[in-house]
Amino acid sequence: MINKIRNFSNWPIPIKIIFSFAIVIILGSFFLALPVSQLASSKATYFDHLFGAISMVAVTGLATVPVAETYNIYGQIITLVLIKLGGLGLITIVSAIVMQFGRQVSMREEITLQQALNRSDMKGFRHFLLNVVKYTTLFEAIGAILFMFKFIPHFGWASGIFNSIFLSISAFNNAGFDNLGTVSLQSFVDTPMINIVVPILIILGGIGFSVWFDVAKHFKQFSTARSWVDFKGTYRKLKLHTRLVIKWSMGLIVSAVVIFTLAEWNNPQTLGSLDFSGKIQAIFFQAVTLRTAGFSTLDFSEFHMFTLIAFTVFMFIGGSPGGTAGGAKTSTVALVVKLMGAEIKGVTNVNYKKRTLEMDIIKRALVIVVMFILLNFFALALMTIFDEQIPLQYLFFETVSAFGTVGLSADLTASLSRPSQTVIMFCMFIGRIGPITIFTALGNRDRRYRDIRYATGNILIG
Amino acid sequence: MINKIRNFSNWPIPIKIIFSFAIVIILGSFFLALPVSQLASSKATYFDHLFGAISMVAVTGLATVPVAETYNIYGQIITLVLIKLGGLGLITIVSAIVMQFGRQVSMREEITLQQALNRSDMKGFRHFLLNVVKYTTLFEAIGAILFMFKFIPHFGWASGIFNSIFLSISAFNNAGFDNLGTVSLQSFVDTPMINIVVPILIILGGIGFSVWFDVAKHFKQFSTARSWVDFKGTYRKLKLHTRLVIKWSMGLIVSAVVIFTLAEWNNPQTLGSLDFSGKIQAIFFQAVTLRTAGFSTLDFSEFHMFTLIAFTVFMFIGGSPGGTAGGAKTSTVALVVKLMGAEIKGVTNVNYKKRTLEMDIIKRALVIVVMFILLNFFALALMTIFDEQIPLQYLFFETVSAFGTVGLSADLTASLSRPSQTVIMFCMFIGRIGPITIFTALGNRDRRYRDIRYATGNILIG
Ligand SMILES: [K+]
Ligand SMILES: [K+]
Repeated sequence: MINKIRNFSNWPIPIKIIFSFAIVIILGSFFLALPVSQLASSKATYFDHLFGAISMVAVTGLATVPVAETYNIYGQIITLVLIKLGGLGLITIVSAIVMQFGRQVSMREEITLQQALNRSDMKGFRHFLLNVVKYTTLFEAIGAILFMFKFIPHFGWASGIFNSIFLSISAFNNAGFDNLGTVSLQSFVDTPMINIVVPILIILGGIGFSVWFDVAKHFKQFSTARSWVDFKGTYRKLKLHTRLVIKWSMGLIVSAVVIFTLAEWNNPQTLGSLDFSGKIQAIFFQAVTLRTAGFSTLDFSEFHMFTLIAFTVFMFIGGSPGGTAGGAKTSTVALVVKLMGAEIKGVTNVNYKKRTLEMDIIKRALVIVVMFILLNFFALALMTIFDEQIPLQYLFFETVSAFGTVGLSADLTASLSRPSQTVIMFCMFIGRIGPITIFTALGNRDRRYRDIRYATGNILIG
Repeated sequence: MINKIRNFSNWPIPIKIIFSFAIVIILGSFFLALPVSQLASSKATYFDHLFGAISMVAVTGLATVPVAETYNIYGQIITLVLIKLGGLGLITIVSAIVMQFGRQVSMREEITLQQALNRSDMKGFRHFLLNVVKYTTLFEAIGAILFMFKFIPHFGWASGIFNSIFLSISAFNNAGFDNLGTVSLQSFVDTPMINIVVPILIILGGIGFSVWFDVAKHFKQFSTARSWVDFKGTYRKLKLHTRLVIKWSMGLIVSAVVIFTLAEWNNPQTLGSLDFSGKIQAIFFQAVTLRTAGFSTLDFSEFHMFTLIAFTVFMFIGGSPGGTAGGAKTSTVALVVKLMGAEIKGVTNVNYKKRTLEMDIIKRALVIVVMFILLNFFALALMTIFDEQIPLQYLFFETVSAFGTVGLSADLTASLSRPSQTVIMFCMFIGRIGPITIFTALGNRDRRYRDIRYATGNILIG
């Protein structure tokens, strides 16, 4: 037994990560499929439970059957456990196991591990992990308590407390699941409590642990800043990564607000029917939930074709690395944009805030973006075979949502054919683990590739 | 006057290229709009002529009005002139002008020029240019003579000869225009002459001049090869670029044949109604025309959604650099694929045939691919605003076709709204000049960017 575990600990890390995710998903689907987890009225098959388990562990939120009409309290607790495991990142847990075994990791493995964790050094790893668990729990608890003010009067004590915990965990982990009904949070479209607390939880969970800890380190200085200049001075002390991520996250939310407002303000099926305050709340909520959380307070199948297409860009980018979010990640896309800028200017060094960024990381960012695009496209093409009668924009929205582990849907998931739903399962799985980890696992199995430098060859390009 | 031209010769090359294209297009549109160029029955407005002129200079083939129903013999001759200018590449002509003035070119300009010409050295440039014109004319003449065997019996002497010349020039330059009717070459779907000669002209024009000359240099050795081993030995003497392009071009044609056969064999609206020989001809023709030429012998609006989506990949890749083809280019995409392979294997050197490829070129290839994707997406999003009622797959097919200067359409161009047609005009223009040239022109105006190397900054990515 010990021997087998030792064998496991000798596996290449990417394979270990994939394997761990798969095991948790399969176990989760078994537990969900037990009659004791389900409501008497549940009509779910094993396929639906498996789809749900993947969606939970991948913190996506797409579902072929609604949680509220399928699982009882036990099933919903399993849901929460799967979301917690997925959100904190099995990656983190796996890595912790690796560290526990304390065996020597190769240079290359250490790099993979660092990339999986999005930490640039491995020092103080245990301390980091404990802090992650501590703050995660703290934020989830605060969220839950706030929701209770709304939910206990609404659902009574028992359900009110449980539903508050459920929503808080789901929001913080960017999971997009709810146990309230079949139409996400549409009944709360103009409830300020929901429209303020849920987005804050989403942002905190999605911005990445390294950003938290960097801001926390300077928290005292921020809180004692006497002037705007003071504040800006402290801001400049934050890590390059932290500032890039904060800037991009804010920029993306503002862009989503502008595009959404212009496109849907007068659409009677979406914003058009709300009063001014309702419109503002709905716009803000959708702009935040869009990139990775996947809750909705409006019916996405009623949006204009343009809105759905524009939203796929935000879903594609997703949240920031090292948190609970999915997608290609803000910083990845930022590096690609910066490289394009450098190429246009005709300079070779890619700079940000008087720092030059490493070309190896930029190259990797480009590869991630191109791979995500390719995989999205491939999945979409497959679905056009299986569900030709569905408008392409709905299929496209669904695949990008699955890859970005967003979980928004133009009310489509349940009506897809089984083959297309299977495609969506793979999208969620790959989207959560990340295409590079998947492919590294395929390519790296026995370290058979040597890095050879030959004489330079010339290829002309377009 | 001389002074003004001297000023022109001092402009940055990217701006010169864009300016020359624009001038030729505007002049072309004026000539096309003259009543003397048009048939009495023509209902075209200036907008249609401008659209046509862009499409001809960009060798695309999309049109809001059919050539055969709009232009008389004079208008059709203007069409051919615009196609020839676009196909040979105004780039080539502009560069020739630059060389004539003989002024010192800066290092950076020389690089831009080399990239525009897709030649890795500037020696013997005049000789190269003369050879291009010579062989281009030769191939077009042979094509025209072969078509005459079919067209003179069909259209009579005068029209038969002219139509043969028109089709040969259009095919060799990958222009996709014909003067035979409103449905491209659909009436020749099972005419072997058309299905053999047109694809050969397309391939010769689209594979790039540098490939021709490399193969020509070893032509004698190829023709005297006594065995397969001999032949392969000679093949190995070809330049790295030549071998890469030949391999990818063949691979793409074979892939298109396989996908097309699987997807459409039984579709009664496309291949299904043809006999076996007709099916084979139609498959081969479409597989070759698809990437950049833009003729069609089938009605693309009748294809399955999957087929249209899969075909966009081929249109996106396009032909090879330094020829008459458009698209991101075979070798560009090949480099991106090779980099992804290296990243998966975890090696830093990107190798092909025991040569290491330069990272600067690979980076540029990645930027081209990402820019093409972004521009395609942006154009598509705009069109969904203006033409929401049209199925997304048709709009998508149209934009990729325009950017790749392919010219295939699901019978859509004429029925688009004017704003969408304007978007398509920009797509064709940018697609022919190339996104990097466009953006370099914007960014490089006054050489104000210095290439500074700062200390390294760390960004974590997805
Ligand atoms: K989600
Ligand atoms: K074309």
